[in-house]
Amino acid sequence: MSSANEAAKMFYRTLGNTGLITSVFGFGFWATFGVKAGLLDREGIEQAKQIISVAREGGINLFDNAETYGNPVGEAERIFGQAYKELSTENPELWRRSEVIITTKLFWGGSGQNERGLSRKHIMEGMANSLKRLQMDYVDLIYCHRPDALTPTETIVRAMTDLVRSGKAMAWGTSEWSAQQITEAFWIARMEGLEPPQVEQPQYHMFHRERFEKEYFPLYRAPYNIATTTWSPLASGLLTGKYNDGIPEGSRVTQKGYEWLQSIITDWKEQGKLDKVKELSEYAEKNLGCTMAQLALAWCVKNENASCVLLGATKVEQIEDNLKAIPVAAKLTDTHMEEIEKILGNKPDNFWGHGNRKVLASL
Amino acid sequence: MSSANEAAKMFYRTLGNTGLITSVFGFGFWATFGVKAGLLDREGIEQAKQIISVAREGGINLFDNAETYGNPVGEAERIFGQAYKELSTENPELWRRSEVIITTKLFWGGSGQNERGLSRKHIMEGMANSLKRLQMDYVDLIYCHRPDALTPTETIVRAMTDLVRSGKAMAWGTSEWSAQQITEAFWIARMEGLEPPQVEQPQYHMFHRERFEKEYFPLYRAPYNIATTTWSPLASGLLTGKYNDGIPEGSRVTQKGYEWLQSIITDWKEQGKLDKVKELSEYAEKNLGCTMAQLALAWCVKNENASCVLLGATKVEQIEDNLKAIPVAAKLTDTHMEEIEKILGNKPDNFWGHGNRKVLASL
Amino acid sequence: MSSANEAAKMFYRTLGNTGLITSVFGFGFWATFGVKAGLLDREGIEQAKQIISVAREGGINLFDNAETYGNPVGEAERIFGQAYKELSTENPELWRRSEVIITTKLFWGGSGQNERGLSRKHIMEGMANSLKRLQMDYVDLIYCHRPDALTPTETIVRAMTDLVRSGKAMAWGTSEWSAQQITEAFWIARMEGLEPPQVEQPQYHMFHRERFEKEYFPLYRAPYNIATTTWSPLASGLLTGKYNDGIPEGSRVTQKGYEWLQSIITDWKEQGKLDKVKELSEYAEKNLGCTMAQLALAWCVKNENASCVLLGATKVEQIEDNLKAIPVAAKLTDTHMEEIEKILGNKPDNFWGHGNRKVLASL
Amino acid sequence: MSSANEAAKMFYRTLGNTGLITSVFGFGFWATFGVKAGLLDREGIEQAKQIISVAREGGINLFDNAETYGNPVGEAERIFGQAYKELSTENPELWRRSEVIITTKLFWGGSGQNERGLSRKHIMEGMANSLKRLQMDYVDLIYCHRPDALTPTETIVRAMTDLVRSGKAMAWGTSEWSAQQITEAFWIARMEGLEPPQVEQPQYHMFHRERFEKEYFPLYRAPYNIATTTWSPLASGLLTGKYNDGIPEGSRVTQKGYEWLQSIITDWKEQGKLDKVKELSEYAEKNLGCTMAQLALAWCVKNENASCVLLGATKVEQIEDNLKAIPVAAKLTDTHMEEIEKILGNKPDNFWGHGNRKVLASL
Repeated sequence: MSSANEAAKMFYRTLGNTGLITSVFGFGFWATFGVKAGLLDREGIEQAKQIISVAREGGINLFDNAETYGNPVGEAERIFGQAYKELSTENPELWRRSEVIITTKLFWGGSGQNERGLSRKHIMEGMANSLKRLQMDYVDLIYCHRPDALTPTETIVRAMTDLVRSGKAMAWGTSEWSAQQITEAFWIARMEGLEPPQVEQPQYHMFHRERFEKEYFPLYRAPYNIATTTWSPLASGLLTGKYNDGIPEGSRVTQKGYEWLQSIITDWKEQGKLDKVKELSEYAEKNLGCTMAQLALAWCVKNENASCVLLGATKVEQIEDNLKAIPVAAKLTDTHMEEIEKILGNKPDNFWGHGNRKVLASL
Repeated sequence: MSSANEAAKMFYRTLGNTGLITSVFGFGFWATFGVKAGLLDREGIEQAKQIISVAREGGINLFDNAETYGNPVGEAERIFGQAYKELSTENPELWRRSEVIITTKLFWGGSGQNERGLSRKHIMEGMANSLKRLQMDYVDLIYCHRPDALTPTETIVRAMTDLVRSGKAMAWGTSEWSAQQITEAFWIARMEGLEPPQVEQPQYHMFHRERFEKEYFPLYRAPYNIATTTWSPLASGLLTGKYNDGIPEGSRVTQKGYEWLQSIITDWKEQGKLDKVKELSEYAEKNLGCTMAQLALAWCVKNENASCVLLGATKVEQIEDNLKAIPVAAKLTDTHMEEIEKILGNKPDNFWGHGNRKVLASL
Repeated sequence: MSSANEAAKMFYRTLGNTGLITSVFGFGFWATFGVKAGLLDREGIEQAKQIISVAREGGINLFDNAETYGNPVGEAERIFGQAYKELSTENPELWRRSEVIITTKLFWGGSGQNERGLSRKHIMEGMANSLKRLQMDYVDLIYCHRPDALTPTETIVRAMTDLVRSGKAMAWGTSEWSAQQITEAFWIARMEGLEPPQVEQPQYHMFHRERFEKEYFPLYRAPYNIATTTWSPLASGLLTGKYNDGIPEGSRVTQKGYEWLQSIITDWKEQGKLDKVKELSEYAEKNLGCTMAQLALAWCVKNENASCVLLGATKVEQIEDNLKAIPVAAKLTDTHMEEIEKILGNKPDNFWGHGNRKVLASL
Repeated sequence: MSSANEAAKMFYRTLGNTGLITSVFGFGFWATFGVKAGLLDREGIEQAKQIISVAREGGINLFDNAETYGNPVGEAERIFGQAYKELSTENPELWRRSEVIITTKLFWGGSGQNERGLSRKHIMEGMANSLKRLQMDYVDLIYCHRPDALTPTETIVRAMTDLVRSGKAMAWGTSEWSAQQITEAFWIARMEGLEPPQVEQPQYHMFHRERFEKEYFPLYRAPYNIATTTWSPLASGLLTGKYNDGIPEGSRVTQKGYEWLQSIITDWKEQGKLDKVKELSEYAEKNLGCTMAQLALAWCVKNENASCVLLGATKVEQIEDNLKAIPVAAKLTDTHMEEIEKILGNKPDNFWGHGNRKVLASL
């Protein structure tokens, strides 16, 4: 029922300096595939094919992975690799390799001391392993999944450059690096004639804005033009509104292994954030006729510095529901945004420069 | 009664890459001179001579100024310039220009739009005016007093470089720039063959640590080796303990013009910080036999990344009292520091790198 | 009986700028394998498997080779390559390629004029031959086994860079180059956008310290951060104490081919070094409850600039005995080190900078 | 009786990359002027004029000073400055500023912590003070008198570059820096578009050869082409032969303040060096008809890497005597040099490269 043409309902953006065009929503494999023990391998692959097909038909062209996703490590890449291989045979037009942006991230490749981090050894070995699992010759973006205190930036930039220059990736980026670290990597690349980082993958949602909006602010401009692929737009579900009244009885959150999420919910409650989510839910319904989740996603997309907002659905219905945030985003006016800002009350100060120095009056 | 030899009671540190050796305490002219309206000029100069003599005899060799200090603007530089001139005639050995480090800062040179900020025009005009007021041919360090959103970093680095190369300053630095901004300035200098920034002047005290200890952390290492001259070690007096029980009746804080300080005191009270100051005051007396102020100063000095901690006394007794923090610092053990940390409870996380990646065991 | 977890008894260090983590002891194949004429090939491989298994189980993760080791040339690589292949099949978890650091060195590849040295021709041909013998696609570190007076540094740096960039090695280093030569190679790489040397393999033991502690001193810091893998920690056995009373009757040292060792023993005797070894042996037994060899090894490891100290055992008992130096190193206090220094009496002067210039007093 | 023409009896050499031509002997002011307390100022200046006139008439065109020479500090520069001023009026042809090479060195400018070392502050202040004492606008060579552990090389190179570019010196050099330090300075200058060091001033005589002949060896070639102005060719008088039989009764060496020299004499005696001096003295007389001192000087001059050998006479007769080493140098054959080498027995190994790698046979 869908085609590449209909995908125009999606919005697209340029991905920084890469010349690539990305859908404003991407699909991420964090906590989506390869995590359920006991799921038959074939069943897992079929499920993955189904969900990413819905995403692709909805206009999504960016698919985000990491060597560490899945259980055991590498499982998410393996499942996606096999799913993609089958889909591109079954529907070669929709799944043209030349039209989709496939990414992965390196940092945690195993339990050993030299199997993690950003040594050249791990970058080279990790990339080779990822490509083998993905059954591909290259990815489009390769990320350093975290900063590594034990490897100097220059060593990392040299290795990432060689991935690009040997054709294993089209560009490289970072995830959760500080603005200082990205700036340093950029200039070392400039000094040494190496490939600069092109994209950062940070957490970004209504209650996690400081780094994205303030710390990274100078990086969105020349000479950096850093693109972003943001994660956790729904704050692990808290921005769907389903925990507005605390943790529902029998929710999986009450189970073992979800203590971290319970503690976040408790914190948000104490900090008054859940009240704000409630207020925003009502605002969404009343003024935009949408769900809280759709508003939260649309709000991210409205920030033009978010090149691509990563969704992470495990069910077809979720991804379908999330995609409805696109028309919501199209509908959001400056007035809506100001009213939402008033409810949130957490807009970061613009730190760049100093208040006393401004153009007094300009047209 | 004192001499350069006796100054060995002071501690000294190298000032980053400059090759200069600075006393761990410096003397700052912020809110010290030229601020009392109505004070006869001669009286102000004599008072300045008296106080900075006590500082110099105590081993202090760094004297910090800014074009904006004093009222009207420039008054602090004018008073210090005249005081220094007289002192170096009266006591030429103690006040040798080759042994003291004299600094000033540029940003606010007047009320006009082009009299502030970091345009080349203001940097050149401001420097010329400062040197005239100081009656000197050069200063040792010249700072950009704040970042300027309206002037690109490269323009600033070019102008500061020319101050250094024309002999008007021995090195240049920044004040309250972000780590990203300093990193950018450093690499632009490196790329373009210009002079890199050598020193940052940030606020730093027990309750204002995040930027100094976390954000700037990578800058203290190669290739940056940024030195620091830190300000407000006593948090505008809150770390003396004198507001532990709120604002005393009849205090000058209750007067007009001090609303900002009142509001800080109120905030600290609400945030439980004043209780912690009270607890620390008792700790200081009981375990170290010193005052709260001395502990607060010694605590700053214990951080080896604080090259020089700026004191800002207006009375001889204050500076004498502050200097007694030196033996306190010498006495502070790791155990003391840990106990103080426990009271403070605000140690910033080390953000550099990622926890999952570390050397398993090392000697 | 052992596992990667138990390996935590070993100590680990970062290997300079590479981002790799090395065990503080490594295993070197100099004079260990492939040297005994007449040893059946299978026997040699089995012996090698046995010894390096003990090393690996003891936490050692660095294995050092050279194209010239063994007799005929290349034999040590061939034996290790086959041993590693078999071990990684028999115990794939312990011998994961991604966790171990495998190195080799190029200089003497044959008897011809163009089969040795550091011409691009020999570097390329030598590397190919080494990898074939090792049955591997890449090594982790590739060294220039000596400086080569006949090949300009730039030619060498270009060839080594191409080994790294073509994926045949993760980083390159030098062995027994002067500090001046390493510095030159580093800056030529920087100027020309090539790969800088990352590691040096020098001789280092209690009576051969000058170059390691003094000449190389500036290289351990930024911008170089040169790592080291040191050889001959036991001075060809002299630091085991077994020649304390001269050469024992019937010792292999009295045989032909060992004249060089005889002459060293004679020199050490004349120079009073054997007396010092005797004194140190007693010190080790009395104060640390360890053998002379263990003290000599622990002493090397205590120097944090020794990233990895290479052991060279030919018997299982030797490597087991050597590994006991790890708890000795953990036990060595500053006082022990000073007492040992007093016996040695050969601590190199710190040449860096000039004594008259120092910070008078610092915390 | 002499003129610039007759000066052709002197030998001349190019001074590295500077394009300057230096006499193979220079005149140094270390321990020559301004050191005798009680000497009337006028008397000191007259004496200086007399001695340097003999040197100049003998063809010497390089005059070496340092800010620290003399007592108090600066006295040697002050005396030379005044002497030169008077001489260039009295004999303007001989003392043309355009024909002589005047040098000085910075490191020890006073007793304060910031009055020594190689901070930009001291380099700038020291240079200004030196030029004032010399009564000159510029010197031809300015040296860093020692390495400074507290100032990074880049900071030093930047400041020295600015001395050259502002016209205060024609080139800059180092004194007693290690080959590694000079190499680093050279490449930092190359990287950053700064002025590289051009000349090194090391100690060099028959019994202090290792650094000059071996460590510095690679620096005499491209791309460095470091020139040298060597000091102490007579080893504080030991190579005159006057201590061959120990310290003569009543010699000034027995006086207080000369303990350092006594201890050297004792060492040389114990090490058999005085015997070798005796042997060389006889060789000189028998084979060359010259004194030991003349042979020692001629021997230095024969090394073409010694661009200029500094003499340090305090009496007219001494300088006249020393100049007679020129015809001795002209007479020294390869056979002489080999015979002398045999007596000395301390020729440093050529360390550059490794013995096993050489061209087997070449025409």
